[in-house]
This record gives sequence, C-alpha cells and structure tokens, in this order.
Amino acid sequence: MFPKSGFCDLGFAKVDIDRQKRRGFAEVVYCPGKTKKDIKSISRQLLKNKQDLLLTRLDKKTFLYLKKSIPRLKYNVLAKIGYKATKKKNLKGGLVLVISAGTSDIPVAEEAVVTLEVMGNKVSKLYDVGVAGVHRVMKYVDSLKKATVIIVVAGMEGALASLVSGLVKVPVVAVPTSCGYGASFKGLAALLTMLNSCSPGVAVVNIDNGFGAGYFAHLINQ
Amino acid sequence: MFPKSGFCDLGFAKVDIDRQKRRGFAEVVYCPGKTKKDIKSISRQLLKNKQDLLLTRLDKKTFLYLKKSIPRLKYNVLAKIGYKATKKKNLKGGLVLVISAGTSDIPVAEEAVVTLEVMGNKVSKLYDVGVAGVHRVMKYVDSLKKATVIIVVAGMEGALASLVSGLVKVPVVAVPTSCGYGASFKGLAALLTMLNSCSPGVAVVNIDNGFGAGYFAHLINQ
Amino acid sequence: MFPKSGFCDLGFAKVDIDRQKRRGFAEVVYCPGKTKKDIKSISRQLLKNKQDLLLTRLDKKTFLYLKKSIPRLKYNVLAKIGYKATKKKNLKGGLVLVISAGTSDIPVAEEAVVTLEVMGNKVSKLYDVGVAGVHRVMKYVDSLKKATVIIVVAGMEGALASLVSGLVKVPVVAVPTSCGYGASFKGLAALLTMLNSCSPGVAVVNIDNGFGAGYFAHLINQ
Amino acid sequence: MFPKSGFCDLGFAKVDIDRQKRRGFAEVVYCPGKTKKDIKSISRQLLKNKQDLLLTRLDKKTFLYLKKSIPRLKYNVLAKIGYKATKKKNLKGGLVLVISAGTSDIPVAEEAVVTLEVMGNKVSKLYDVGVAGVHRVMKYVDSLKKATVIIVVAGMEGALASLVSGLVKVPVVAVPTSCGYGASFKGLAALLTMLNSCSPGVAVVNIDNGFGAGYFAHLINQ
Amino acid sequence: MFPKSGFCDLGFAKVDIDRQKRRGFAEVVYCPGKTKKDIKSISRQLLKNKQDLLLTRLDKKTFLYLKKSIPRLKYNVLAKIGYKATKKKNLKGGLVLVISAGTSDIPVAEEAVVTLEVMGNKVSKLYDVGVAGVHRVMKYVDSLKKATVIIVVAGMEGALASLVSGLVKVPVVAVPTSCGYGASFKGLAALLTMLNSCSPGVAVVNIDNGFGAGYFAHLINQ
Amino acid sequence: MFPKSGFCDLGFAKVDIDRQKRRGFAEVVYCPGKTKKDIKSISRQLLKNKQDLLLTRLDKKTFLYLKKSIPRLKYNVLAKIGYKATKKKNLKGGLVLVISAGTSDIPVAEEAVVTLEVMGNKVSKLYDVGVAGVHRVMKYVDSLKKATVIIVVAGMEGALASLVSGLVKVPVVAVPTSCGYGASFKGLAALLTMLNSCSPGVAVVNIDNGFGAGYFAHLINQ
Amino acid sequence: MFPKSGFCDLGFAKVDIDRQKRRGFAEVVYCPGKTKKDIKSISRQLLKNKQDLLLTRLDKKTFLYLKKSIPRLKYNVLAKIGYKATKKKNLKGGLVLVISAGTSDIPVAEEAVVTLEVMGNKVSKLYDVGVAGVHRVMKYVDSLKKATVIIVVAGMEGALASLVSGLVKVPVVAVPTSCGYGASFKGLAALLTMLNSCSPGVAVVNIDNGFGAGYFAHLINQ
Amino acid sequence: MFPKSGFCDLGFAKVDIDRQKRRGFAEVVYCPGKTKKDIKSISRQLLKNKQDLLLTRLDKKTFLYLKKSIPRLKYNVLAKIGYKATKKKNLKGGLVLVISAGTSDIPVAEEAVVTLEVMGNKVSKLYDVGVAGVHRVMKYVDSLKKATVIIVVAGMEGALASLVSGLVKVPVVAVPTSCGYGASFKGLAALLTMLNSCSPGVAVVNIDNGFGAGYFAHLINQ
Repeated sequence: MFPKSGFCDLGFAKVDIDRQKRRGFAEVVYCPGKTKKDIKSISRQLLKNKQDLLLTRLDKKTFLYLKKSIPRLKYNVLAKIGYKATKKKNLKGGLVLVISAGTSDIPVAEEAVVTLEVMGNKVSKLYDVGVAGVHRVMKYVDSLKKATVIIVVAGMEGALASLVSGLVKVPVVAVPTSCGYGASFKGLAALLTMLNSCSPGVAVVNIDNGFGAGYFAHLINQ
Repeated sequence: MFPKSGFCDLGFAKVDIDRQKRRGFAEVVYCPGKTKKDIKSISRQLLKNKQDLLLTRLDKKTFLYLKKSIPRLKYNVLAKIGYKATKKKNLKGGLVLVISAGTSDIPVAEEAVVTLEVMGNKVSKLYDVGVAGVHRVMKYVDSLKKATVIIVVAGMEGALASLVSGLVKVPVVAVPTSCGYGASFKGLAALLTMLNSCSPGVAVVNIDNGFGAGYFAHLINQ
Repeated sequence: MFPKSGFCDLGFAKVDIDRQKRRGFAEVVYCPGKTKKDIKSISRQLLKNKQDLLLTRLDKKTFLYLKKSIPRLKYNVLAKIGYKATKKKNLKGGLVLVISAGTSDIPVAEEAVVTLEVMGNKVSKLYDVGVAGVHRVMKYVDSLKKATVIIVVAGMEGALASLVSGLVKVPVVAVPTSCGYGASFKGLAALLTMLNSCSPGVAVVNIDNGFGAGYFAHLINQ
Repeated sequence: MFPKSGFCDLGFAKVDIDRQKRRGFAEVVYCPGKTKKDIKSISRQLLKNKQDLLLTRLDKKTFLYLKKSIPRLKYNVLAKIGYKATKKKNLKGGLVLVISAGTSDIPVAEEAVVTLEVMGNKVSKLYDVGVAGVHRVMKYVDSLKKATVIIVVAGMEGALASLVSGLVKVPVVAVPTSCGYGASFKGLAALLTMLNSCSPGVAVVNIDNGFGAGYFAHLINQ
Repeated sequence: MFPKSGFCDLGFAKVDIDRQKRRGFAEVVYCPGKTKKDIKSISRQLLKNKQDLLLTRLDKKTFLYLKKSIPRLKYNVLAKIGYKATKKKNLKGGLVLVISAGTSDIPVAEEAVVTLEVMGNKVSKLYDVGVAGVHRVMKYVDSLKKATVIIVVAGMEGALASLVSGLVKVPVVAVPTSCGYGASFKGLAALLTMLNSCSPGVAVVNIDNGFGAGYFAHLINQ
Repeated sequence: MFPKSGFCDLGFAKVDIDRQKRRGFAEVVYCPGKTKKDIKSISRQLLKNKQDLLLTRLDKKTFLYLKKSIPRLKYNVLAKIGYKATKKKNLKGGLVLVISAGTSDIPVAEEAVVTLEVMGNKVSKLYDVGVAGVHRVMKYVDSLKKATVIIVVAGMEGALASLVSGLVKVPVVAVPTSCGYGASFKGLAALLTMLNSCSPGVAVVNIDNGFGAGYFAHLINQ
Repeated sequence: MFPKSGFCDLGFAKVDIDRQKRRGFAEVVYCPGKTKKDIKSISRQLLKNKQDLLLTRLDKKTFLYLKKSIPRLKYNVLAKIGYKATKKKNLKGGLVLVISAGTSDIPVAEEAVVTLEVMGNKVSKLYDVGVAGVHRVMKYVDSLKKATVIIVVAGMEGALASLVSGLVKVPVVAVPTSCGYGASFKGLAALLTMLNSCSPGVAVVNIDNGFGAGYFAHLINQ
Repeated sequence: MFPKSGFCDLGFAKVDIDRQKRRGFAEVVYCPGKTKKDIKSISRQLLKNKQDLLLTRLDKKTFLYLKKSIPRLKYNVLAKIGYKATKKKNLKGGLVLVISAGTSDIPVAEEAVVTLEVMGNKVSKLYDVGVAGVHRVMKYVDSLKKATVIIVVAGMEGALASLVSGLVKVPVVAVPTSCGYGASFKGLAALLTMLNSCSPGVAVVNIDNGFGAGYFAHLINQ
C-alpha cells in the first residue's frame, strides 16, 4: 500500500515524504519541543524530496537561524509561520473567509490565513465583529454569503460561531482561543460554547489552533 | 440587631420570619430533600407569621397533599412552584422581560416568570429566539428596549445572553440550563459562556435556577 | 435583511420558516424537553410552510402519536429520527462515508446516515473498523479515497479519526460517543482525543451528535 | 436598525462608535493581547467620535506611551485602568457599595470602583470584612442598608456574598477572585460558592472581573 | 507488631478484630456493594469477637433481614445506620455540636449524630441555621462556645463552616453535602468552599460523609 | 501483512478472526450497547473460526438467551463474563495474584480472575486487605512474593497499589473502582492515586476494568 | 456580642484585634497579594494591641524589610513564616507529630511545625516515611502512638494519611501537597486520595496549607 | 520482616537501603524540590550502602555540582538522568522497544530508555511513527514483534498506544506526554486516550513519566 516505504529515517524523525501525494499537502512541522538543528534537518529533507515546507509556531529567532541555510524561506511574524512552497500554487476552489471576534484573537486568525494562502486558497478577512456589537457582523451578511467556507476565531464566550452559522449555507470551522478572564479557563469556555452550538453547521478544532482550522478549510475548499 | 430573635424554631427548621421585613420578601422554601410533613409545618409557620409563601421545585403530588391543609394554595405545573401571597401586590417598578433561547428552556423560564409575578412585578415573555435564527430576536429589539431588566434563559451554548446584552442599556440576568448534547456537561457549557460574555452587562445565576434569576431581577426592579 | 419576519410565532416557539431559504435546509426539531403537542404544532407549522421536516432524538412512542396527524411521516428506529421531505431530493455532491469504530457506536453513526440521506446525499457505511484490528480499515483504503467527506464515529479512546485522516485528502468530521468504561467520562476522553488529533484535517462535533456531523458533512458536500 | 453602520473600520478593529448611544456607555477596551499601537489607534478613534474612553487591564508602561498622544488621559495604578471622559458626569442613581473580603482582593475591588466612578456613580468602599471575623461586617449593617446595589469581591471560599445578601434588600453582584491556596483552583472555588449562594439575590461575574461587576452595578443603578 | 494476626478470614472478607484495641473502636461496615449475606457474616464475626457493630448506609430492607439473626440490632432510619454496642458506653469528653445549614442536610447530619452517640459521645444538635439568615446562628453563639468540637454540615455553597469557625476556639469538622442546584456539581462546590475557608480551624471530610465527620469528632473528643 | 483479510464482515460488525493468531487471544466481545442478536451473530462467527469466546459485561438475561444456541457456554455471575474456550489451556507462566482492597471491589476483581483463568493462567486471590488495617496485607508478604504479577483492585482512595508495589519485585497492575463516597467522583480519585504512585512499578488500567487488568497481566505472564 | 467593635480600621484593612480573645489566637496575616507597607501597618497594629504576630508565606526580602521596624521579629526560611509572640507560651496539651511522606514535602511540613510551635505546642517530626518503603513508618509505630494528634503531609498519591490513621487512636490531619508528576494536577490527586481515605479518622485541609493543618491540630491539642 | 530496620536516617530523609534487596533495584531519587546538598547526602548514603544510584529530573547544574564529590557519576542530558551503577549489569530478559509518536516526545522516551539501560535491559528505539503517517509504524511490524515489552510515548491525542497494542502479543506500557495544543490540557487528553484504549493490553503511567514506564517495563522483562 505504501511502496518504497514513503519516509526518510533521520533517527530522531521519520519524515513523511509520501504525504504530499497521499494527502495533497506535505507534512507540516510543529516546531515547539524541537531543537533548531532538528527543524533544519527535517526541513531540508522535506525540500530535498520536493515537499512544500510549512513550519508552525516558529519563533523569530529560530526562523533567522533557518534562513541562513534555507534561502527564500518566508516568515509571517504575527502567525508565527515559516514557509517555502515548491512551486507557485494556482488558486482553486472558492473564497475562504476568516473572521475574528476580537482584536486579541487576530494572531490565531492570521495563523489560519497564512496556512490557507500557502496551501493555495483565496482568503478574505473580517476582524473584530464579535456579538457585543452585532451590527458589525450584520453589516457583512452579503460578504458571509460569498464564502465557500468560513473560519470563526473567538475567545471569551465564543458565541460568534453560532451566530455566523445561522446566517449562511456553508460550513463554519470554529477555533476557540485562550483569550479571556479567569473562567475562560484558557479557552475551555469558548471550546464548549462552540461544541454546543445550537446552530448546526459548526465543527470545532483545538484551542488556538489556527493552523488546524486553515488546513481543514482548505480540504473543504478543494 | 435582630431583636426578638426573628425566627421560629421547629427543631428540624428555624423558620426565618424576619425575612420579609429584612429582605423585602419572605423565606422561600426549596422543597427537594424535605418531607411532605416538613414542608407543611414550615408553610404553616410562615403563613401564621404573615409571610408570603413561595415553594420552589414542588412536585404536583406534594402540592396536592399541601392543598388539603392550606386553602387557596396555588400551583404552576410548568414552573413547579406553589405559592400563596398574604395580600395582593401592587405592581411597581418597570417591566421585566424573560427570554428563552429554545423551547426546551421554557420550564426554567417559567420558574422565573412565576417568581417575578408572585413578588409583584410586571412580566413579559419572549420565547424561542435563539441565535440559530437571529432574525427572530432582532425583530424584537424595540421590545427589548422597553424592559427595565432582562432575564435570558439558555442551554446548549448559551450565546443569547451576550447578544441581547449588546443591544440594550439594562442589566441582563443570565440563566444557563442543563439542556443539550453530551459536551454541555449538564449546563456547564452554557454557564461558562455566560460568565465569559464579551458584552459587559451580564451576570449569571446557577444552572436551571429560574427562581434565583427571578428573585434577582425583582431586586433590581424595585 | 429578513423581510416579512421569516418566522411563525406559536407563543412557546418561533418557528423559523426562513431557514430553508437562508441556510439550504429547514429548521430541525430537537425533541427532548418538548411535549408531544408542542412537537406536533411545530411540525405542522413547518410542513404548512413547505419546509422539510426532520425530528431528532424522537422516541418511538412520540413518533406513533405524531404519525396519526402527519401522514407519511417516516421513522428510523436506530437513529431515532422522524422525517418527511417536501419533495424528492436529487442526489448531488460526492459520496459521504460514515465510519464507526465499534458496533456500540452504530446508533450515533445511523443518526448521521439518516440525516445525510434526508438532506439528499449519497451515503456509504463502514462499521466496526476500530484500531484494535487496524487491518480492517486498511483493507478499505480504496473506499476511503472515494469519499468526498468522511464521518468517523468512535467512543472509548476515539483514535480512529486521526488514523483515517492520515490516509486521505478529504475532511474528516469526528463524532465522539459516550460509550466506554469509567474513565471515558461519558465521551470526554474521545472528545479530547479528536480535538488533539496529530493528523490535521479533523474537526469535531458534540458528543453523540450524529445529526450535527451529518449536517456539517452535507454542507461540505454541496 | 443600525443606520450609518455605527462603527469605524480600522482593518484590525471595527470600533463600535454607536455603543454610547445604544448601550449608554462607549465601547470599553480590554488591553491584553493588543499592541500599544493598536490601543492608541482605537483610543483615538473613540475620542474622535466623542465616546468616553475606558481602558482595562492597562499596564503602566503602555499608559505612559499612550499619555504622550492622548493628553489628560488618567490612570489608576491599583485598578490598572486608563480613562478619559468626554464630559463631566452628573452623579445619578443611588450609592454603590463595593466590599472586599480580604486585603488581597483590593485590586479587583478597585477595578470595580474606578469603573463605577468613570461611569458617573456615587461609590462607597468597605474593605477587609471577610467572614473569619464576622463582627466587622455586622458593624456596618446600617451602611449596607444605604446602598442601592452592592458588589462583593472575595477570593478563597467567597462566603461573604451570601452573608451580605442575607442582610439586605438590594441586589448583590459577586466577583470571585483568584486569590487563595491550591484548591481555590485560581478562583474556581469562590466562583462555585457564589453561584450556589443559599441566599437568593446574588448574581456572579467572571473571576477577577472587577470591571464587569462595576459595569453591571452601574446598569442597575441607572 | 500484630501478634495473633488480628483478623478473621472469611475468604471474601478479612474482618479486622484487632481494630477495637488498636484504634479504640471496631471496624465499621460500609454496606453499599455488599450482599445481605456478606453483611450478616461480617456482623456475626464482629459480635463473636466482642467488637461493637456499626453498619453505615444500611437500607431498611437489609436491616430487617439482619434483625432476624441479630437480636437487639438497632436502626436509625434517617441516618441509615444499624448498630449494636457490646456494652453501654460511659459518656466521656466534652459536648459535640452538630450543625446543619439547611433542612435538606439533616440526613447527613443525623449520620454524624448517631455515629457519635454509638461511640459514646454527648451530642447536641443545631439545625437550619444557614447564612441566608445569619441571625439564627448568631443567636446561638453561647451554645457554640460550649462545644468541644463542632461539626458543620452544609450543601449549596457551604459557607456556614467558615462563619462558625470564626466565632469559636474549637476545631470545626466540615461536611459538604450533595444538595443544591446544578453548579453544586453534587457537592463539589461546598467541598471547595470548605477547603478554602478563610477562617483557620476548619478541616474537611468527604461529600455526604456524616459518618466520617462523627468518627473524626469522636477522636478529637477523647 | 494481513493476508486473506483476517476478518468476517457481518455488516454491522467486522469480526477479527485473525486476532487469536496475531495477538495470542481472540477478539473479546464487550456487550453493552449491542443487541442480543448481534452478540449471538458475533459469537457464532468467532466459534466457527475456532476462536476462543469471551463476553464481558454480559448480563444474566442475555447469557440465558445465548445459551440456547451456544451449548456449553459458561457464565460467571459475579464477574458478568460468559465464555467458551476452544480447547483446554495448559497453565503456563507463573502465578497471578489478584488483590482487592475492600469487599465492594470484589466484582471487578472477579472480572480479572475469570479473564485470567479463561486465558490459561494460574490465579490466586487475596481479598479485603485494604490499608485501613495494614496488618492484614503484611501477613501475606510471603504470598505476595510468590506471584509473577499482581493485580490490585481498589476504590475509595486506592492506596493499596502503592503499598503492595513497595513490597515486591514484580509489576503491579492497578485497577481503580468506582466505589466510594461523593468525592471519589466515580473512581477518579482512585485513578489519580494509582497514576501518582510514589512507588515505581505500578501501571494503571481504566476504572472498573477488571477485564483489562486480567488481559494485561496475562500478557506479562506469558 | 462584640462590644467595642473589636477591630482597627486601617482603611484597606480591618485588623481583627478581638481574635486572640475570641478564638484563642490572634489574626494571622497571609502575605501574598499585600504590599510591604500594608504588612507593616497590619503587623504594628496587631502588636500594639498585644496580639501575637504570625505572618505566613512571607518571602525573605519582605521579612528583612519588616525587621527594620519590628525588632525581634523572627523568621523560618523553610516554612516562610515570620513571627513574634507577645509572651512566652507555656507548652500545654500533648505531643503533635508532623509526618512527611517525602523530602519534597518538607517545606509544607515545616510550615505546620512552626505554626504549632509559635502557638505553644510540643512538636515532633518524622520525615520521609512514604509508603514506597513502608518499613520506615512501621518502625515508628510506637512513636505514632505517643502523639495526641498527627499531621500527615504528602504529595504524589498521598496514601500515607490512610495508612497512619489505620495504626492509631488519634485524629489525623492530612495536608496534600502540589509535588508530583503531571497527573497530580498540582495536588488534586493527593487531595482526593485523602478525602476518600478508607480509614476513618482523617480530615483534610487545603493543598500545601501547612499553616492550616498546624492551626487545626493546635485547636485539637488544647 | 525488615530486620535491621533497612534504612538510614538522615533526619530530613530516611534512605531506603533495603530496597535493592527487596525490590530488585535501589531507591531512585526524584530530584525536584530537593536542595543540592540533600541530593548529595542521599546519593552518598546510597553508594555507601552499595545501592545503585539513579537520579531523575536532575538538571545539568546540579549534576555538575554532584560530580565534584561523586566520581564517575554519569549524566544523560536529554533524559535529565544522573546515574552510577555499583557494578556492570549482565543484560537479561528480552528486548524492550521504546516508541515515540512525535519528535517532541523524545525527551520523555529517552528517560525511559536510560532507566531501562541502567537497570540492565536491552533496549531498542523507534521514534516519530505517529498515526498521522501510519505507514511508518506499519513498516516496523516485524520489529514490534521482536520485543518482549513495548513502551509507547505520545502526546497530543496519544492514539499510537492502541494501534501498536493491536499488532502485538506483548504488553504495551503507555506514557502520555504534556506536548500539544490547548485542549491537550497538559497531557490529560493523551492520558484519557490511553486509559480508554479499545485494544486490550495497554496499561498507563503518569504524564511525562518516562522513568516510571522504564521501571515498569524492566519489571516485566525480568
């Protein structure tokens, strides 16, 4: 089923070079807990095997280290993503709309945006339209209706996902964030809100996982 | 400070007959865990001391038992409240609006409504206007603006409280209900949602505690 | 934005008859906590307004009651869903594959299947292929690859969602179930597993929420 | 319903300049997670549109940065609030009493006090009257009775809210704080205590959310 | 250290007949999960070895079964305790005062009372003096001061333990009960309240564990 | 890797008939959530393919139903296990000792015992030796030392596992049970105790999972 | 009841100078969250009113600051306690034994020891006798039997409290500590273990609360 | 039973020098919460009594301090283990295979590896074979089958343990790690996954407890 094994064994890592073919996109490297050297080795192995390179939760310092040996590596400081595509993607699929409830949720939203763009999607943003002033999002109902899939990023009580879902015909991918006062319990409150959406058409990814939402929306958008 | 002790000692209970004077309303009897006989003894003691009688979470069978010895005891089957006022209340204060997100939340909403009415408040209801179809509540923005205080009763993700609060100038008392799928964890999800409201102006009472919300709204309304 | 209000006010319920137009499918009725009479009134209102009728978590007894006044109402006993479509749907979109990890997860899986079918999707099933005997699911890799979207229903540790996601190019909608020994904490274990999937491309709905998964997969499939 | 849109779009933020009119007070800026520049842009937009300015959880360093471009911006270091009112408020409504159980709860209590004062309320304070020495609060029963609404701020077991509520006719807004030994679980213990108050007339806001309590009490006091 | 083994082996049980000597009181039998026959065998073995017999959480039906073969076995229906002392105890130590916050907490309080009495303590009761009407307990401050040790039994928010402790020089043993609305989470709220008492001098036993509190107070009282 | 597919497809179930060869023991059937008919079909398929039959959490009624069509099916009512071995097992490996802390833990202990016996292990039992009377287990230190592997089954605080582990050279498999007062939270307390054992050499299985412990001990014992 | 008010009002604090008389020991100052200046003011007020001074969780730096203006203030660096007794206490009551399970639990144990000594108790210590090597504590059974009350301080699984309780006739005060691997959840595991002790005679104080245990044991010991 | 007491009393520690004889391996020193001096004293006492020395969670700085007075003390920086064996171990038992799901789990895996090696086991490693690319672990099925016992170290959703267990005849010891996004709740997600494994033959140790897994696997391997 997986002829020619499909991975490179670096000892500490088995780089999955079959992934681009099998899943449509290369193995993505989650950087926390890995040494600079390990990230470099894995990155090189991926590039050598003509896989796209996407590094999540990459701090700037490590990026600068990597950049020395990986020319044209790009970096988005807000999203904390490093990336280098093998070749230019043709945009396909419809428009993905990324919404944030507050301004404090923007870093997570940007992680989704960059992920989507690197994977070749057309992306639009709508930030700071939380339910405390619902006229803001209501103003954009027409924009909501143009999207093929919508990502809603929200902390605190995370109510925006249900509201948006109730206005559209497309799937809403909800991302709870860890932003908020004590009883948000680092995103647990928003997570439960989104899982319990009274409006069907919402599915949820991990807390602060903008990358996961972007990846999932990309799969829908193909 | 509390001259003449202010309570009747029945041994198993110390009935607080000072409460109507001290707090503006008599001691309310929470029925679960009490025997029929105990509820009867306490009720009689309250009435004898010219206190209003309000019995919460009273099942119908116990009501029928009590009715035999307490003439003119009334009962609201949906709210599970038995009551008998010492004298007719003059309505004072403004209008209290009780909103439910779904139809399954109505029993809790009714507990709030009956509590408010027995305590002498003018009450209005708006049921089944959850965020899955936000045009329903938006249709009633003018009604929302007429209230002095609003109670929002909601299970599942409980997002309605934030939304309503964002539209009005008055305090919103939020009641999470235990209604919903597994990850509502018997009301915990809605409770956390409401505590984390991004819209200031929301305070929260216990899960399924329609009585507590009604009582609190009454205090605001005086 | 919502001309002609878009709902019917039954007092205890505001039936959202704008939903089929706005969201592509009619308001779905979640039956627990509603009386038989209430379900009947809501159902009739929906049908009168040419909305599809889908009743979830409907027990057989209530179904039999409803059937008397709603001719041609259908019922799936395993999924506990009652339904009556306004007109025959033309199947569109690709194939949705519904997978269950164990046989005890089948009722939830069936809730997803019936939801999808009523909404007009082509559905295929693959049951009892949990990771305890991974050769079972590996045998069906080709089937997995034919789907447009996959639903994975799993209790206990819920590991199957990650595994399946790692084999395909399409989105995986994961449904944790409450089935398992004590430390499954009524589905919490499977829920956390699925939210933490190391394989990107998984999004999660509420515990035991087969309907929600079916609805979400339908939106993807359009 | 919201003619002329009612907000200013800064891209990263949609400043709600309709809020003062709609809700009686301007949009309040929660500072954590926002850059200094973002806070400055939002603040200027609010002031330009004749909204009051209230910045919560503002650290001193950022205040000093803002002060350079926003003359007459004030700061309360204990409450961590920056503010600048458009015009002097006439005190209206009754007296709001802010009570703290311990001295460690004072920063949260001060956040409530400053919020109330900026919003134009008459405020009185009563600090360090926890139930470990109940004679302290009992000494002030007359003061309690003069308030229109009472805020109780308490960490550890948070028992003071129930006690105070049992002595008065007015609503008690309870604020749990994160102060205490291990099993306070960062305020969870006090939060649950307050939600379960055996004395009706207590409603609860988020852990350490002095601002939210002040805002809510202000709404009651109008 | 334990000469002559000190227990009787019944196969399914090793009855600890050394306990009366070692710990001052015989092994107490917790009945849930044991068959009627097993309880009978263990009881007989204890009596045969001149140990006091105390059976907790014993339902009435099993009591009636046991009574047939164990003459003079006594039963307290409220406390659900069966017992038979080997010989009359001389009361020693001071007075133990058992306080309940509400009437719904009385069954747990009675479990403590009966345990204390069987173990030979002088016991006094003070029921229904919760903080919602604090004048009730304040009326009894002199009684509180006469006790050698005090047990406080309380559900809901459990605030009474802290309050009582703050008034006396003796240890307070706190018993949280599972009585209350949803967010009491079956006694968790009261448990946390009591563990976080701001008034030193409170220690806590398990939820609804009246027996454990009685036993512990007995040890203090010797 | 899995030639000839290795399972029988019954539609609702894929019976893993490769398991006896691959894992050393046949697929075990967990009965809750399966219909009587489904259990019968799966059982027959297993027997037809010369797999051992082990049915866990089987209630007596279903056993009696199965017995009609599966001759010589055996049943242990305490362990709630039905079984039928293909051929007599030769006892191999050392002795497995199953210990219970209390008598209420015996049903879970018996589930382990029967599992072990059906799988062909020599088993010994030691029941009711909890730490409340530590001389009981200390009396059996020599017996402990004769075992190859020890299973400790304990509810309440579950301390016995650490104690036993500290006395022996062999692995201790710990099974928390759901037996205990309120703050055992249905086995969570014992589960955490065992996971945090200060004595290395303890590993833990799911709450009340006697079968899992027996199975794991069997693997060690081979 | 509290003539002459019984406290000094410093504005930010109401120092309870009635406490020594009412409770047998002065108000104890919990230092976290208080400024150096506040601690100094409170300390002086207490000393001026002839109350003993006990400062818990006092860091060394603040101690050095206080020492300048409070001569003869003492400090125990391990226990983090500052203290100054008004006059020498005569030792009364029996012996209090403080036991720690491991060496990492010693700081909490020392907090109990110093508290007890300052309050005038005879104290003995027994450290590092956890159940992983049970022969250590068994060696000291005679010492255990000499105590009037025993404090057991333990992290990880906290099993030692049950074991010790099972060997003695005196009350055991259990202190869970936050020491341990991940699933100790900062002391929650040990807390639950101790609350669920199968051996009656154990009561529990807050996580890491050595002071509370010392105070409680002192009350028993009088 | 423990002649000659079996421990050395250092006051702050009772070093268990009977452990090597009783349990097959010396007392292991868990370093967090101990001072450098304490670790040195304990280490010397162990070595003096001819016990093997194993120091877990030892930071490099403390190692360097210890090395000065303990010649030939070794250190593994990744595993954070210091050790010094009394004499060379002959490898006995079979092969222990240590598997990690991701590269971020390697430090925990290495803690297991070093523990096993110091205790005299033959160890093999297989890193980065998580279920996101299941072909990697499938490639090594033959290697899996050669092991006597397998340790699986995994964070995030921890699904690998179930999968591996389903492929082999030997016990799988599962170690959840704290690595992952927000809803991993510091390893809780992986812990629950592993406890709920649908594949029997998995037992679990504490979060991040590589040492505990190594120790347990060693006991199996003897």
